[in-house]
Amino acid sequence: MKSRVSRKAFLAGATKTIVAASVGAVSANALAGDDQTRQMPIMPKAVQSYTWPYTRLDPEDIRARAHKAYYDGGCGYGAFNAVVSALAEKIGEPFTMMPTQMMYFGGGGGAGWGTLCGALNGAGLAIDLVVDRANSTAIIGELFGWYTKASFPSDISNDRAIRHTFLVNRYDKTLLQTIAGSPLCHTSVSKWCTESGFRATAAERSERCARLTGDVSAKAVEMVNDYFSGTFRAGFVPARAVPSCLGCHDTAGIGNVNPTVKMDCQQCHHEHWDHLY
Amino acid sequence: MKSRVSRKAFLAGATKTIVAASVGAVSANALAGDDQTRQMPIMPKAVQSYTWPYTRLDPEDIRARAHKAYYDGGCGYGAFNAVVSALAEKIGEPFTMMPTQMMYFGGGGGAGWGTLCGALNGAGLAIDLVVDRANSTAIIGELFGWYTKASFPSDISNDRAIRHTFLVNRYDKTLLQTIAGSPLCHTSVSKWCTESGFRATAAERSERCARLTGDVSAKAVEMVNDYFSGTFRAGFVPARAVPSCLGCHDTAGIGNVNPTVKMDCQQCHHEHWDHLY
Repeated sequence: MKSRVSRKAFLAGATKTIVAASVGAVSANALAGDDQTRQMPIMPKAVQSYTWPYTRLDPEDIRARAHKAYYDGGCGYGAFNAVVSALAEKIGEPFTMMPTQMMYFGGGGGAGWGTLCGALNGAGLAIDLVVDRANSTAIIGELFGWYTKASFPSDISNDRAIRHTFLVNRYDKTLLQTIAGSPLCHTSVSKWCTESGFRATAAERSERCARLTGDVSAKAVEMVNDYFSGTFRAGFVPARAVPSCLGCHDTAGIGNVNPTVKMDCQQCHHEHWDHLY
Repeated sequence: MKSRVSRKAFLAGATKTIVAASVGAVSANALAGDDQTRQMPIMPKAVQSYTWPYTRLDPEDIRARAHKAYYDGGCGYGAFNAVVSALAEKIGEPFTMMPTQMMYFGGGGGAGWGTLCGALNGAGLAIDLVVDRANSTAIIGELFGWYTKASFPSDISNDRAIRHTFLVNRYDKTLLQTIAGSPLCHTSVSKWCTESGFRATAAERSERCARLTGDVSAKAVEMVNDYFSGTFRAGFVPARAVPSCLGCHDTAGIGNVNPTVKMDCQQCHHEHWDHLY
């Protein structure tokens, strides 16, 4: 499961992006039909093209932006806005035009439902905006995998909070670190709350998720930086239950499950622990 | 858990959007600093403003668009592209500028991880693009809740497939309907595969998810149409396990979980069935 994007491939991709931007300029004009556009045969920049351009970002700058943006609009918005706002400052259009607020709903695992961690959702959207589909799945999947094994909040975020070097400094104590073992908000938050003793409605839990949003966003741009440098490696190995379970349960009769699934089966299917090991 | 948006509130919101669009035009110019923009003191339209405009969409048109777009870019892209492309045709800018491909990653529950159903993720993003945060959470949460109790693929989608009235007609047989009981891709897909006997890698499973993407997208615009007509009602009631479990487990000592969570506890926490009932 190793993949590598060479510098040559990156440069070829960059060229393709520039070409696509030019093509996009034509097609956007051809598609737009309102009077105002017809009076302007040449639009300033076409932004319908895909992917959007990328330039190397500083993970620490992103960590602070995301931490602050969490307080402005939750984890999904926090991660998406951190990357897009940084690119808007460095590149300008089309990033200045992106309404990052549309990722508000990612908070609380999707409208508060506790599914996909919003920081992963927002970071995934940002990655997919600048990396083509052939490579974004590997990078985003790796980010999910890293998340399941990482200690949140990170040492860096705890340290920044103590030193008051975040953009928003509401709580300057170290927060207990937990490993979610899952990309799901419910699992991640509940585990931290249970082990730390803080309730999910506590300000400390919000600060925990703000630091986590910073950590996930920083890791996301590290990965994208690596990708565009040709040094990205996807090496996540799912929990041992996954290949064990799929060995039987990805066949008709015993139950068909999606063979691409990477979540640890045992976190939900407790009843099979003895069956397996 | 009933909420209602009055026509008066909708009209007030619409006015706010128009004002915000004007303010956005100024701030986007103020923020943009590259030479090309400085030569154009008035941008054609400001699209950084939020929310973006909405006009009533036809759910059946959206169902067909999303079904086709699934085959172009997966469930997340399918749902997001269906709504944005329809609004781009009806309204033009700024929707013509939205790179809907950034929702590719939603497929397979997020880079294939099996978390949030991509159709819900893409539809959520589209809803959050046109409905302000104060109301989008209720609508998106209701869509999630509806999804957990709906039979997929719907009768309408099965019927369209038989009558060859989709835009892409790859499989013209009725597909078995299942109720996921969860907004998670893994649960939704695995349950359908197990009951239907089709493997997750089968073309029939793809068609099932294409029809589901159509169904979710159609329901999403029905809800947004209702919202802007002042007739939207949020009435989803979580499974009985949720309030029962949270009665004890949302307190320190017994374990703290997010009290806003709405997923059915019993789907994963099997071991507590006897404890509860």
